[in-house]
Amino acid sequence: MFSDEEIIQINALQVKPGTSLNLKDHKTEYDGETLNKKEAEAMLEIGRKQLAEIQDMLYAHNEHSVLIVFQAMDAAGKDGAVKHIMSGFNPLGVKVHSFKAPNAYELDHDYFWRHSLALPARGEIAIHNRSHYENVLVTKVHPEYVLKENIPGIESLKDINKDFWDSRYKQIRRFEKNHTQNGMLILKFFLNVSKKEQKKRFLERIEDSSKNWKFSGADLKERTHWDEYQKAYEDAITATSTKYAPWYIIPADDKWFARLAIASIIHRAFSKLDMNYPVVTEAQKADLQKAKAQLLAE
Amino acid sequence: MFSDEEIIQINALQVKPGTSLNLKDHKTEYDGETLNKKEAEAMLEIGRKQLAEIQDMLYAHNEHSVLIVFQAMDAAGKDGAVKHIMSGFNPLGVKVHSFKAPNAYELDHDYFWRHSLALPARGEIAIHNRSHYENVLVTKVHPEYVLKENIPGIESLKDINKDFWDSRYKQIRRFEKNHTQNGMLILKFFLNVSKKEQKKRFLERIEDSSKNWKFSGADLKERTHWDEYQKAYEDAITATSTKYAPWYIIPADDKWFARLAIASIIHRAFSKLDMNYPVVTEAQKADLQKAKAQLLAE
Repeated sequence: MFSDEEIIQINALQVKPGTSLNLKDHKTEYDGETLNKKEAEAMLEIGRKQLAEIQDMLYAHNEHSVLIVFQAMDAAGKDGAVKHIMSGFNPLGVKVHSFKAPNAYELDHDYFWRHSLALPARGEIAIHNRSHYENVLVTKVHPEYVLKENIPGIESLKDINKDFWDSRYKQIRRFEKNHTQNGMLILKFFLNVSKKEQKKRFLERIEDSSKNWKFSGADLKERTHWDEYQKAYEDAITATSTKYAPWYIIPADDKWFARLAIASIIHRAFSKLDMNYPVVTEAQKADLQKAKAQLLAE
Repeated sequence: MFSDEEIIQINALQVKPGTSLNLKDHKTEYDGETLNKKEAEAMLEIGRKQLAEIQDMLYAHNEHSVLIVFQAMDAAGKDGAVKHIMSGFNPLGVKVHSFKAPNAYELDHDYFWRHSLALPARGEIAIHNRSHYENVLVTKVHPEYVLKENIPGIESLKDINKDFWDSRYKQIRRFEKNHTQNGMLILKFFLNVSKKEQKKRFLERIEDSSKNWKFSGADLKERTHWDEYQKAYEDAITATSTKYAPWYIIPADDKWFARLAIASIIHRAFSKLDMNYPVVTEAQKADLQKAKAQLLAE
Protein backbone atom coordinates (compact mmCIF):
# COMPACT_ATOMS: atom_id res chain seq x y z
CA MET A 1 0.00 0.00 0.00
CA PHE A 2 2.90 2.36 0.80
CA SER A 3 6.46 2.95 -0.32
CA ASP A 4 9.29 2.34 2.17
CA GLU A 5 9.68 6.06 2.64
CA GLU A 6 6.00 6.50 3.43
CA ILE A 7 6.08 3.59 5.88
CA ILE A 8 8.89 5.29 7.77
CA GLN A 9 6.82 8.50 7.91
CA ILE A 10 3.76 6.62 9.11
CA ASN A 11 5.71 4.66 11.72
CA ALA A 12 6.83 8.01 13.06
CA LEU A 13 3.21 8.77 13.97
CA GLN A 14 3.37 6.21 16.77
CA VAL A 15 4.12 7.60 20.22
CA LYS A 16 6.95 5.43 21.49
CA PRO A 17 6.47 4.25 25.08
CA GLY A 18 8.33 6.52 27.49
CA THR A 19 8.21 9.52 25.17
CA SER A 20 6.92 12.71 26.73
CA LEU A 21 4.47 13.95 24.13
CA ASN A 22 4.54 17.59 23.09
CA LEU A 23 1.85 18.23 20.49
CA LYS A 24 3.69 21.37 19.32
CA ASP A 25 6.31 19.03 17.81
CA HIS A 26 3.66 17.30 15.71
CA LYS A 27 2.47 18.51 12.32
CA THR A 28 -1.27 18.81 11.81
CA GLU A 29 -0.88 18.72 8.03
CA TYR A 30 0.63 16.28 5.59
CA ASP A 31 4.04 17.72 4.80
CA GLY A 32 5.45 14.95 2.64
CA GLU A 33 5.99 15.32 -1.08
CA THR A 34 5.17 11.89 -2.45
CA LEU A 35 1.41 11.78 -1.88
CA ASN A 36 -1.49 13.81 -3.17
CA LYS A 37 -5.20 13.73 -2.48
CA LYS A 38 -6.31 11.96 -5.63
CA GLU A 39 -3.68 9.25 -5.35
CA ALA A 40 -4.41 8.82 -1.64
CA GLU A 41 -8.10 8.27 -2.31
CA ALA A 42 -7.30 5.55 -4.85
CA MET A 43 -4.92 3.94 -2.33
CA LEU A 44 -7.60 4.10 0.36
CA GLU A 45 -10.01 2.29 -1.95
CA ILE A 46 -7.49 -0.56 -2.31
CA GLY A 47 -6.77 -0.44 1.41
CA ARG A 48 -10.44 -0.86 2.25
CA LYS A 49 -10.56 -4.05 0.20
CA GLN A 50 -7.42 -5.41 1.85
CA LEU A 51 -8.85 -4.67 5.29
CA ALA A 52 -12.08 -6.48 4.38
CA GLU A 53 -10.06 -9.58 3.40
CA ILE A 54 -8.15 -9.57 6.66
CA GLN A 55 -11.43 -9.11 8.52
CA ASP A 56 -12.67 -12.37 6.97
CA MET A 57 -9.63 -14.14 8.36
CA LEU A 58 -10.02 -12.47 11.77
CA TYR A 59 -13.61 -13.70 11.92
CA ALA A 60 -12.71 -17.25 10.86
CA HIS A 61 -9.67 -17.47 13.14
CA ASN A 62 -11.88 -16.34 16.04
CA GLU A 63 -9.10 -15.78 18.60
CA HIS A 64 -8.22 -12.09 18.34
CA SER A 65 -10.57 -9.17 18.77
CA VAL A 66 -9.80 -5.59 17.72
CA LEU A 67 -10.54 -2.36 19.56
CA ILE A 68 -9.97 0.86 17.62
CA VAL A 69 -10.18 4.06 19.66
CA PHE A 70 -10.73 7.48 18.11
CA GLN A 71 -10.19 10.62 20.17
CA ALA A 72 -10.02 14.21 19.01
CA MET A 73 -11.26 17.74 19.39
CA ASP A 74 -14.60 18.53 17.67
CA ALA A 75 -14.60 18.63 13.86
CA ALA A 76 -11.28 16.76 13.63
CA GLY A 77 -12.91 14.17 11.36
CA LYS A 78 -13.66 11.17 13.60
CA ASP A 79 -17.04 10.40 12.05
CA GLY A 80 -15.69 10.83 8.53
CA ALA A 81 -12.77 8.51 9.27
CA VAL A 82 -15.13 5.82 10.55
CA LYS A 83 -17.35 6.24 7.49
CA HIS A 84 -14.60 6.26 4.87
CA ILE A 85 -12.25 3.66 6.32
CA MET A 86 -14.67 1.20 7.88
CA SER A 87 -17.47 1.11 5.32
CA GLY A 88 -15.72 -1.70 3.43
CA PHE A 89 -15.90 -4.00 6.43
CA ASN A 90 -18.54 -6.69 6.64
CA PRO A 91 -21.05 -5.14 9.07
CA LEU A 92 -21.61 -8.59 10.60
CA GLY A 93 -18.30 -8.29 12.45
CA VAL A 94 -18.02 -4.56 13.22
CA LYS A 95 -19.65 -2.55 15.99
CA VAL A 96 -19.30 1.21 16.28
CA HIS A 97 -20.05 2.88 19.59
CA SER A 98 -20.25 6.66 19.90
CA PHE A 99 -19.94 7.57 23.54
CA LYS A 100 -21.72 10.65 24.79
CA ALA A 101 -21.80 12.13 28.31
CA PRO A 102 -22.65 9.28 30.73
CA ASN A 103 -26.26 9.10 31.96
CA ALA A 104 -27.33 8.54 35.57
CA TYR A 105 -27.54 4.78 35.15
CA GLU A 106 -24.03 4.60 33.71
CA LEU A 107 -22.67 6.89 36.43
CA ASP A 108 -23.88 4.38 39.01
CA HIS A 109 -21.13 2.05 37.74
CA ASP A 110 -17.42 2.77 37.64
CA TYR A 111 -16.17 4.52 34.54
CA PHE A 112 -14.93 1.37 32.79
CA TRP A 113 -18.29 -0.36 32.87
CA ARG A 114 -20.09 1.10 29.85
CA HIS A 115 -16.94 0.85 27.77
CA SER A 116 -16.45 -2.79 28.77
CA LEU A 117 -19.97 -3.60 27.60
CA ALA A 118 -19.00 -2.33 24.16
CA LEU A 119 -15.77 -4.31 23.81
CA PRO A 120 -15.42 -6.57 20.77
CA ALA A 121 -16.01 -10.32 20.93
CA ARG A 122 -13.37 -12.65 19.44
CA GLY A 123 -13.32 -12.24 15.68
CA GLU A 124 -15.00 -8.84 15.93
CA ILE A 125 -13.85 -5.24 15.46
CA ALA A 126 -15.21 -2.56 17.79
CA ILE A 127 -14.71 1.10 17.03
CA HIS A 128 -15.04 3.45 19.97
CA ASN A 129 -15.81 6.94 18.76
CA ARG A 130 -14.68 8.65 21.97
CA SER A 131 -13.83 6.10 24.63
CA HIS A 132 -12.74 5.39 28.21
CA TYR A 133 -10.15 8.12 27.60
CA GLU A 134 -12.79 10.80 28.04
CA ASN A 135 -12.40 9.99 31.73
CA VAL A 136 -8.94 11.57 31.67
CA LEU A 137 -9.73 14.23 29.06
CA VAL A 138 -13.07 16.01 29.41
CA THR A 139 -12.99 15.27 33.16
CA LYS A 140 -9.43 16.62 33.40
CA VAL A 141 -10.59 19.92 31.91
CA HIS A 142 -13.81 19.86 33.95
CA PRO A 143 -12.88 18.00 37.17
CA GLU A 144 -16.28 18.80 38.70
CA TYR A 145 -17.69 16.01 36.45
CA VAL A 146 -15.69 13.45 38.45
CA LEU A 147 -17.66 14.30 41.60
CA LYS A 148 -20.79 12.86 39.93
CA GLU A 149 -19.08 9.44 39.89
CA ASN A 150 -19.45 9.02 43.69
CA ILE A 151 -16.00 7.46 44.17
CA PRO A 152 -15.21 6.70 47.82
CA GLY A 153 -12.73 9.27 49.15
CA ILE A 154 -13.27 11.69 46.25
CA GLU A 155 -15.46 14.23 48.00
CA SER A 156 -14.33 17.59 46.66
CA LEU A 157 -12.22 19.14 43.89
CA LYS A 158 -9.13 19.10 46.10
CA ASP A 159 -9.23 15.27 46.04
CA ILE A 160 -8.89 15.35 42.26
CA ASN A 161 -5.18 16.02 42.28
CA LYS A 162 -2.09 14.74 40.48
CA ASP A 163 -2.23 11.45 42.40
CA PHE A 164 -5.81 10.96 41.29
CA TRP A 165 -4.88 11.34 37.61
CA ASP A 166 -1.72 9.25 37.89
CA SER A 167 -3.78 6.52 39.46
CA ARG A 168 -6.37 6.75 36.70
CA TYR A 169 -3.71 6.48 33.96
CA LYS A 170 -2.42 3.39 35.74
CA GLN A 171 -5.93 1.92 35.85
CA ILE A 172 -6.24 2.44 32.09
CA ARG A 173 -2.89 0.73 31.49
CA ARG A 174 -4.05 -2.24 33.61
CA PHE A 175 -7.39 -2.40 31.79
CA GLU A 176 -5.69 -2.43 28.41
CA LYS A 177 -2.97 -4.86 29.49
CA ASN A 178 -5.55 -7.35 30.73
CA HIS A 179 -7.47 -7.22 27.47
CA THR A 180 -4.43 -7.39 25.19
CA GLN A 181 -3.03 -10.35 27.14
CA ASN A 182 -6.31 -12.11 26.44
CA GLY A 183 -6.18 -11.59 22.70
CA MET A 184 -7.37 -8.04 22.02
CA LEU A 185 -5.51 -5.83 19.57
CA ILE A 186 -5.86 -2.21 20.73
CA LEU A 187 -5.05 0.72 18.43
CA LYS A 188 -5.58 4.29 19.57
CA PHE A 189 -5.76 7.28 17.26
CA PHE A 190 -5.59 10.94 18.21
CA LEU A 191 -6.74 13.03 15.25
CA ASN A 192 -4.53 16.07 15.60
CA VAL A 193 -6.39 19.01 14.09
CA SER A 194 -5.09 22.57 14.39
CA LYS A 195 -7.06 25.29 16.14
CA LYS A 196 -7.06 27.22 12.85
CA GLU A 197 -8.49 24.28 10.89
CA GLN A 198 -11.19 23.70 13.51
CA LYS A 199 -12.22 27.34 13.13
CA LYS A 200 -12.42 26.91 9.35
CA ARG A 201 -14.52 23.74 9.69
CA PHE A 202 -16.86 25.34 12.24
CA LEU A 203 -17.41 28.29 9.91
CA GLU A 204 -18.10 25.89 7.01
CA ARG A 205 -20.64 24.01 9.12
CA ILE A 206 -22.39 27.25 10.01
CA GLU A 207 -22.64 28.23 6.33
CA ASP A 208 -23.64 24.80 4.98
CA SER A 209 -27.41 24.45 5.22
CA SER A 210 -27.20 20.64 4.94
CA LYS A 211 -25.05 20.53 8.08
CA ASN A 212 -25.78 23.57 10.22
CA TRP A 213 -28.85 22.03 11.89
CA LYS A 214 -26.40 19.96 13.93
CA PHE A 215 -24.25 22.89 15.00
CA SER A 216 -25.01 24.63 18.24
CA GLY A 217 -23.38 27.55 19.97
CA ALA A 218 -22.43 25.09 22.73
CA ASP A 219 -19.91 23.50 20.33
CA LEU A 220 -17.81 26.62 20.72
CA LYS A 221 -17.61 26.29 24.48
CA GLU A 222 -15.03 23.52 24.54
CA ARG A 223 -12.95 25.45 22.00
CA THR A 224 -12.33 28.11 24.67
CA HIS A 225 -10.55 25.36 26.65
CA TRP A 226 -8.27 24.47 23.69
CA ASP A 227 -4.94 24.73 25.53
CA GLU A 228 -6.22 22.78 28.54
CA TYR A 229 -7.38 20.00 26.21
CA GLN A 230 -4.03 19.90 24.39
CA LYS A 231 -2.34 19.51 27.78
CA ALA A 232 -4.81 16.82 28.87
CA TYR A 233 -4.14 14.89 25.64
CA GLU A 234 -0.38 15.23 26.06
CA ASP A 235 -0.51 13.93 29.63
CA ALA A 236 -2.91 11.07 28.89
CA ILE A 237 -1.08 9.91 25.76
CA THR A 238 2.32 10.17 27.42
CA ALA A 239 1.06 7.99 30.27
CA THR A 240 -0.78 5.40 28.18
CA SER A 241 1.07 4.87 24.90
CA THR A 242 2.42 1.40 25.58
CA LYS A 243 3.95 -1.34 23.52
CA TYR A 244 0.76 -3.38 23.86
CA ALA A 245 -1.68 -0.51 23.18
CA PRO A 246 0.05 2.25 21.22
CA TRP A 247 -1.22 5.74 20.44
CA TYR A 248 -0.84 7.29 17.00
CA ILE A 249 -0.88 11.06 16.45
CA ILE A 250 -2.57 11.56 13.09
CA PRO A 251 -2.15 14.89 11.28
CA ALA A 252 -5.84 15.66 10.67
CA ASP A 253 -5.97 18.96 8.79
CA ASP A 254 -5.82 17.01 5.50
CA LYS A 255 -8.63 14.51 5.79
CA TRP A 256 -7.40 12.43 2.85
CA PHE A 257 -4.04 11.89 4.50
CA ALA A 258 -5.54 11.18 7.94
CA ARG A 259 -7.80 8.47 6.51
CA LEU A 260 -5.04 6.84 4.50
CA ALA A 261 -2.61 6.88 7.42
CA ILE A 262 -5.17 5.31 9.77
CA ALA A 263 -6.09 2.62 7.24
CA SER A 264 -2.43 1.86 6.71
CA ILE A 265 -1.69 1.58 10.44
CA ILE A 266 -4.65 -0.74 10.96
CA HIS A 267 -3.58 -2.81 7.96
CA ARG A 268 -0.02 -3.18 9.25
CA ALA A 269 -1.21 -4.13 12.74
CA PHE A 270 -3.64 -6.72 11.33
CA SER A 271 -0.89 -8.19 9.16
CA LYS A 272 1.29 -8.82 12.19
CA LEU A 273 -1.35 -10.96 13.89
CA ASP A 274 -0.59 -14.65 13.66
CA MET A 275 -3.77 -15.85 11.99
CA ASN A 276 -4.89 -18.67 9.74
CA TYR A 277 -8.11 -20.31 8.66
CA PRO A 278 -8.99 -23.04 11.16
CA VAL A 279 -7.54 -26.43 10.32
CA VAL A 280 -9.99 -29.31 10.11
CA THR A 281 -9.13 -32.06 12.60
CA GLU A 282 -9.18 -35.76 11.75
CA ALA A 283 -12.39 -36.17 13.76
CA GLN A 284 -14.00 -33.30 11.86
CA LYS A 285 -12.83 -34.79 8.55
CA ALA A 286 -14.56 -38.07 9.42
CA ASP A 287 -17.66 -36.08 10.38
CA LEU A 288 -17.58 -34.23 7.06
CA GLN A 289 -17.30 -37.47 5.09
CA LYS A 290 -20.23 -38.90 7.04
CA ALA A 291 -22.29 -35.80 6.28
CA LYS A 292 -21.36 -36.02 2.61
CA ALA A 293 -22.37 -39.68 2.41
CA GLN A 294 -25.64 -38.88 4.14
CA LEU A 295 -26.46 -36.09 1.69
CA LEU A 296 -25.55 -38.14 -1.36
CA ALA A 297 -27.67 -41.05 -0.15
CA GLU A 298 -30.86 -38.95 0.10
CA MET B 1 -32.81 0.85 -10.25
CA PHE B 2 -35.43 -1.35 -11.95
CA SER B 3 -37.64 -1.32 -15.03
CA ASP B 4 -41.42 -1.15 -14.53
CA GLU B 5 -41.70 -4.81 -15.38
CA GLU B 6 -39.10 -5.77 -12.79
CA ILE B 7 -40.80 -3.62 -10.17
CA ILE B 8 -44.04 -5.50 -10.75
CA GLN B 9 -42.16 -8.80 -10.33
CA ILE B 10 -40.51 -7.58 -7.14
CA ASN B 11 -43.74 -6.23 -5.70
CA ALA B 12 -45.16 -9.70 -6.21
CA LEU B 13 -42.65 -10.99 -3.65
CA GLN B 14 -44.59 -9.28 -0.86
CA VAL B 15 -47.03 -11.48 1.04
CA LYS B 16 -50.26 -9.51 0.99
CA PRO B 17 -52.01 -9.38 4.38
CA GLY B 18 -54.72 -12.02 4.58
CA THR B 19 -53.01 -14.31 2.05
CA SER B 20 -52.57 -17.88 3.16
CA LEU B 21 -48.97 -18.59 2.17
CA ASN B 22 -48.14 -21.80 0.35
CA LEU B 23 -44.41 -21.96 -0.33
CA LYS B 24 -44.98 -24.48 -3.14
CA ASP B 25 -46.47 -21.62 -5.16
CA HIS B 26 -43.26 -19.61 -4.83
CA LYS B 27 -40.27 -19.95 -7.13
CA THR B 28 -36.88 -20.43 -5.48
CA GLU B 29 -35.06 -19.29 -8.64
CA TYR B 30 -35.13 -16.16 -10.73
CA ASP B 31 -37.35 -17.03 -13.67
CA GLY B 32 -37.52 -13.68 -15.40
CA GLU B 33 -35.80 -12.98 -18.70
CA THR B 34 -34.68 -9.41 -18.37
CA LEU B 35 -31.91 -9.79 -15.77
CA ASN B 36 -28.63 -11.63 -15.68
CA LYS B 37 -25.99 -12.07 -13.02
CA LYS B 38 -23.44 -9.61 -14.35
CA GLU B 39 -25.99 -6.88 -14.91
CA ALA B 40 -27.54 -7.52 -11.49
CA GLU B 41 -24.19 -7.11 -9.77
CA ALA B 42 -23.63 -3.77 -11.47
CA MET B 43 -27.14 -2.69 -10.44
CA LEU B 44 -26.48 -3.79 -6.85
CA GLU B 45 -23.35 -1.64 -6.79
CA ILE B 46 -25.45 1.40 -7.74
CA GLY B 47 -28.15 0.34 -5.28
CA ARG B 48 -25.66 0.21 -2.43
CA LYS B 49 -24.67 3.82 -3.11
CA GLN B 50 -28.30 4.95 -3.24
CA LEU B 51 -29.00 3.20 0.05
CA ALA B 52 -26.00 4.89 1.66
CA GLU B 53 -27.35 8.30 0.58
CA ILE B 54 -30.76 7.58 2.04
CA GLN B 55 -29.10 6.37 5.23
CA ASP B 56 -27.47 9.79 5.60
CA MET B 57 -30.91 11.37 5.44
CA LEU B 58 -32.38 8.82 7.86
CA TYR B 59 -29.62 9.65 10.34
CA ALA B 60 -30.07 13.41 9.97
CA HIS B 61 -33.87 13.27 10.08
CA ASN B 62 -33.62 11.22 13.29
CA GLU B 63 -37.29 10.23 13.54
CA HIS B 64 -37.54 6.85 11.85
CA SER B 65 -35.63 3.73 12.74
CA VAL B 66 -35.35 0.65 10.51
CA LEU B 67 -35.52 -3.01 11.49
CA ILE B 68 -34.60 -5.53 8.80
CA VAL B 69 -35.31 -9.16 9.65
CA PHE B 70 -33.68 -12.07 7.84
CA GLN B 71 -35.01 -15.57 8.28
CA ALA B 72 -34.18 -18.70 6.31
CA MET B 73 -33.08 -22.30 6.36
CA ASP B 74 -29.30 -22.90 6.70
CA ALA B 75 -27.14 -21.96 3.70
CA ALA B 76 -29.87 -19.82 2.15
CA GLY B 77 -27.50 -16.85 2.00
CA LYS B 78 -28.41 -14.64 4.98
CA ASP B 79 -24.83 -13.78 5.91
CA GLY B 80 -23.89 -13.11 2.29
CA ALA B 81 -26.92 -10.86 1.82
CA VAL B 82 -25.93 -8.82 4.88
CA LYS B 83 -22.35 -8.57 3.66
CA HIS B 84 -23.11 -7.66 0.06
CA ILE B 85 -26.09 -5.37 0.55
CA MET B 86 -25.20 -3.63 3.79
CA SER B 87 -21.47 -3.10 3.42
CA GLY B 88 -22.05 0.26 1.72
CA PHE B 89 -23.82 1.64 4.77
CA ASN B 90 -22.00 3.95 7.16
CA PRO B 91 -21.19 1.59 10.05
CA LEU B 92 -21.90 4.45 12.48
CA GLY B 93 -25.62 3.93 11.95
CA VAL B 94 -25.98 0.16 11.38
CA LYS B 95 -26.05 -2.63 13.92
CA VAL B 96 -26.17 -6.30 12.93
CA HIS B 97 -27.29 -8.85 15.50
CA SER B 98 -26.97 -12.57 14.83
CA PHE B 99 -29.21 -14.41 17.25
CA LYS B 100 -28.19 -17.85 18.39
CA ALA B 101 -29.98 -20.22 20.80
CA PRO B 102 -30.90 -18.22 23.93
CA ASN B 103 -28.64 -18.67 26.96
CA ALA B 104 -29.87 -19.21 30.53
CA TYR B 105 -29.77 -15.50 31.35
CA GLU B 106 -31.84 -14.64 28.28
CA LEU B 107 -34.31 -17.46 29.01
CA ASP B 108 -34.98 -15.84 32.38
CA HIS B 109 -36.71 -13.03 30.47
CA ASP B 110 -39.64 -13.38 28.10
CA TYR B 111 -38.76 -14.10 24.49
CA PHE B 112 -39.08 -10.50 23.29
CA TRP B 113 -36.51 -9.17 25.73
CA ARG B 114 -33.21 -9.90 24.01
CA HIS B 115 -34.65 -8.84 20.65
CA SER B 116 -35.91 -5.56 22.15
CA LEU B 117 -32.43 -4.78 23.44
CA ALA B 118 -31.17 -5.00 19.86
CA LEU B 119 -33.81 -2.73 18.30
CA PRO B 120 -32.56 0.29 16.34
CA ALA B 121 -32.49 3.79 17.80
CA ARG B 122 -34.00 6.65 15.77
CA GLY B 123 -31.87 7.29 12.71
CA GLU B 124 -30.37 3.80 12.92
CA ILE B 125 -30.72 0.57 10.94
CA ALA B 126 -30.70 -2.74 12.82
CA ILE B 127 -30.36 -6.01 10.95
CA HIS B 128 -31.57 -9.07 12.80
CA ASN B 129 -29.93 -12.16 11.36
CA ARG B 130 -32.54 -14.57 12.76
CA SER B 131 -34.96 -12.76 15.03
CA HIS B 132 -37.92 -12.94 17.40
CA TYR B 133 -39.46 -15.17 14.72
CA GLU B 134 -37.30 -18.10 15.84
CA ASN B 135 -39.79 -18.27 18.71
CA VAL B 136 -42.46 -19.47 16.28
CA LEU B 137 -40.10 -21.40 13.98
CA VAL B 138 -37.42 -23.49 15.66
CA THR B 139 -39.67 -23.78 18.73
CA LYS B 140 -42.60 -24.83 16.55
CA VAL B 141 -40.52 -27.70 15.15
CA HIS B 142 -39.03 -28.47 18.60
CA PRO B 143 -41.78 -27.49 21.06
CA GLU B 144 -39.79 -28.94 23.97
CA TYR B 145 -37.61 -25.78 23.76
CA VAL B 146 -40.60 -23.71 24.87
CA LEU B 147 -40.69 -25.52 28.22
CA LYS B 148 -37.30 -23.97 29.06
CA GLU B 149 -38.99 -20.53 28.99
CA ASN B 150 -40.87 -21.17 32.29
CA ILE B 151 -44.09 -19.51 31.11
CA PRO B 152 -46.90 -19.69 33.71
CA GLY B 153 -49.46 -22.30 32.64
CA ILE B 154 -47.15 -23.89 30.06
CA GLU B 155 -46.12 -26.98 31.97
CA SER B 156 -45.99 -29.74 29.37
CA LEU B 157 -46.02 -30.32 25.62
CA LYS B 158 -49.83 -30.58 25.58
CA ASP B 159 -50.04 -26.91 26.63
CA ILE B 160 -48.16 -25.96 23.48
CA ASN B 161 -51.17 -26.28 21.20
CA LYS B 162 -52.79 -24.29 18.40
CA ASP B 163 -54.05 -21.69 20.88
CA PHE B 164 -50.52 -21.22 22.16
CA TRP B 165 -49.16 -20.52 18.67
CA ASP B 166 -52.10 -18.31 17.66
CA SER B 167 -51.53 -16.29 20.77
CA ARG B 168 -47.83 -15.99 20.04
CA TYR B 169 -48.49 -14.77 16.47
CA LYS B 170 -50.83 -12.18 17.96
CA GLN B 171 -48.12 -11.10 20.43
CA ILE B 172 -45.70 -10.61 17.54
CA ARG B 173 -48.26 -8.52 15.65
CA ARG B 174 -48.76 -6.34 18.74
CA PHE B 175 -45.01 -5.99 19.26
CA GLU B 176 -44.49 -4.89 15.66
CA LYS B 177 -47.54 -2.62 15.62
CA ASN B 178 -46.34 -0.79 18.72
CA HIS B 179 -42.93 -0.20 17.23
CA THR B 180 -44.13 0.83 13.78
CA GLN B 181 -46.63 3.27 15.31
CA ASN B 182 -43.70 4.86 17.09
CA GLY B 183 -41.65 5.38 13.95
CA MET B 184 -39.99 2.05 13.15
CA LEU B 185 -39.94 0.75 9.58
CA ILE B 186 -40.01 -3.06 9.72
CA LEU B 187 -39.10 -5.18 6.68
CA LYS B 188 -39.01 -8.96 6.90
CA PHE B 189 -37.28 -11.22 4.41
CA PHE B 190 -37.65 -14.97 4.06
CA LEU B 191 -34.85 -16.29 1.85
CA ASN B 192 -36.60 -19.10 0.05
CA VAL B 193 -33.97 -21.68 -0.87
CA SER B 194 -34.90 -25.07 -2.34
CA LYS B 195 -34.04 -28.32 -0.59
CA LYS B 196 -32.02 -29.28 -3.66
CA GLU B 197 -29.99 -26.06 -3.60
CA GLN B 198 -29.31 -26.44 0.12
CA LYS B 199 -27.92 -29.92 -0.57
CA LYS B 200 -25.67 -28.50 -3.29
CA ARG B 201 -24.40 -25.75 -0.99
CA PHE B 202 -23.80 -28.16 1.90
CA LEU B 203 -21.76 -30.42 -0.42
CA GLU B 204 -19.77 -27.40 -1.64
CA ARG B 205 -19.04 -26.39 1.94
CA ILE B 206 -17.82 -29.88 2.75
CA GLU B 207 -15.46 -29.85 -0.23
CA ASP B 208 -14.16 -26.29 0.20
CA SER B 209 -11.23 -26.34 2.61
CA SER B 210 -11.56 -22.60 3.31
CA LYS B 211 -15.12 -23.17 4.57
CA ASN B 212 -15.48 -26.70 5.84
CA TRP B 213 -14.05 -25.94 9.29
CA LYS B 214 -17.36 -24.29 10.07
CA PHE B 215 -19.49 -27.19 8.88
CA SER B 216 -20.56 -29.80 11.37
CA GLY B 217 -22.63 -32.92 11.01
CA ALA B 218 -25.17 -31.23 13.29
CA ASP B 219 -26.03 -28.84 10.44
CA LEU B 220 -27.69 -31.75 8.71
CA LYS B 221 -30.01 -32.43 11.61
CA GLU B 222 -32.41 -29.56 10.94
CA ARG B 223 -32.53 -30.55 7.26
CA THR B 224 -34.31 -33.74 8.27
CA HIS B 225 -37.13 -31.48 9.56
CA TRP B 226 -37.39 -29.64 6.22
CA ASP B 227 -41.13 -30.10 5.70
CA GLU B 228 -41.97 -29.14 9.27
CA TYR B 229 -39.92 -25.96 8.87
CA GLN B 230 -41.65 -25.10 5.59
CA LYS B 231 -44.99 -25.47 7.36
CA ALA B 232 -43.81 -23.41 10.35
CA TYR B 233 -42.70 -20.63 7.97
CA GLU B 234 -45.99 -20.75 6.08
CA ASP B 235 -48.02 -20.47 9.29
CA ALA B 236 -45.87 -17.74 10.81
CA ILE B 237 -45.69 -15.63 7.67
CA THR B 238 -49.41 -16.03 6.97
CA ALA B 239 -50.18 -14.82 10.48
CA THR B 240 -47.71 -11.94 10.59
CA SER B 241 -47.42 -10.38 7.13
CA THR B 242 -49.20 -7.13 7.82
CA LYS B 243 -49.54 -3.79 6.10
CA TYR B 244 -47.29 -2.21 8.73
CA ALA B 245 -44.66 -5.00 8.80
CA PRO B 246 -44.73 -6.97 5.55
CA TRP B 247 -42.94 -10.21 4.73
CA TYR B 248 -41.18 -10.74 1.42
CA ILE B 249 -40.50 -14.20 0.00
CA ILE B 250 -37.17 -13.94 -1.81
CA PRO B 251 -36.19 -16.62 -4.36
CA ALA B 252 -32.78 -17.50 -2.93
CA ASP B 253 -31.31 -20.17 -5.21
CA ASP B 254 -29.74 -17.42 -7.33
CA LYS B 255 -27.81 -15.31 -4.84
CA TRP B 256 -27.32 -12.45 -7.27
CA PHE B 257 -31.07 -12.09 -7.73
CA ALA B 258 -31.85 -12.45 -4.03
CA ARG B 259 -29.43 -9.66 -3.13
CA LEU B 260 -30.68 -7.33 -5.82
CA ALA B 261 -34.33 -7.94 -4.95
CA ILE B 262 -33.71 -7.28 -1.23
CA ALA B 263 -31.74 -4.10 -1.95
CA SER B 264 -34.51 -2.91 -4.23
CA ILE B 265 -37.26 -3.58 -1.68
CA ILE B 266 -35.32 -1.75 1.02
CA HIS B 267 -34.69 1.13 -1.34
CA ARG B 268 -38.36 1.44 -2.27
CA ALA B 269 -39.45 1.31 1.38
CA PHE B 270 -36.88 3.97 2.36
CA SER B 271 -38.01 6.20 -0.49
CA LYS B 272 -41.57 6.18 0.80
CA LEU B 273 -40.56 7.56 4.20
CA ASP B 274 -41.37 11.22 4.58
CA MET B 275 -37.92 12.55 5.42
CA ASN B 276 -35.96 15.75 5.07
CA TYR B 277 -32.86 17.33 6.50
CA PRO B 278 -33.78 19.19 9.69
CA VAL B 279 -34.82 22.80 9.14
CA VAL B 280 -32.94 25.38 11.16
CA THR B 281 -35.28 27.41 13.37
CA GLU B 282 -35.08 31.20 13.74
CA ALA B 283 -33.63 30.77 17.23
CA GLN B 284 -30.97 28.39 15.87
CA LYS B 285 -30.20 30.82 13.05
CA ALA B 286 -29.55 33.57 15.58
CA ASP B 287 -27.38 31.14 17.55
CA LEU B 288 -25.41 30.28 14.41
CA GLN B 289 -24.82 33.93 13.60
CA LYS B 290 -23.63 34.54 17.15
CA ALA B 291 -21.24 31.60 16.88
CA LYS B 292 -19.96 32.88 13.56
CA ALA B 293 -19.33 36.36 14.95
CA GLN B 294 -17.55 34.84 17.95
CA LEU B 295 -15.24 32.76 15.72
CA LEU B 296 -14.46 35.64 13.40
CA ALA B 297 -13.67 37.93 16.35
CA GLU B 298 -11.03 35.56 17.77
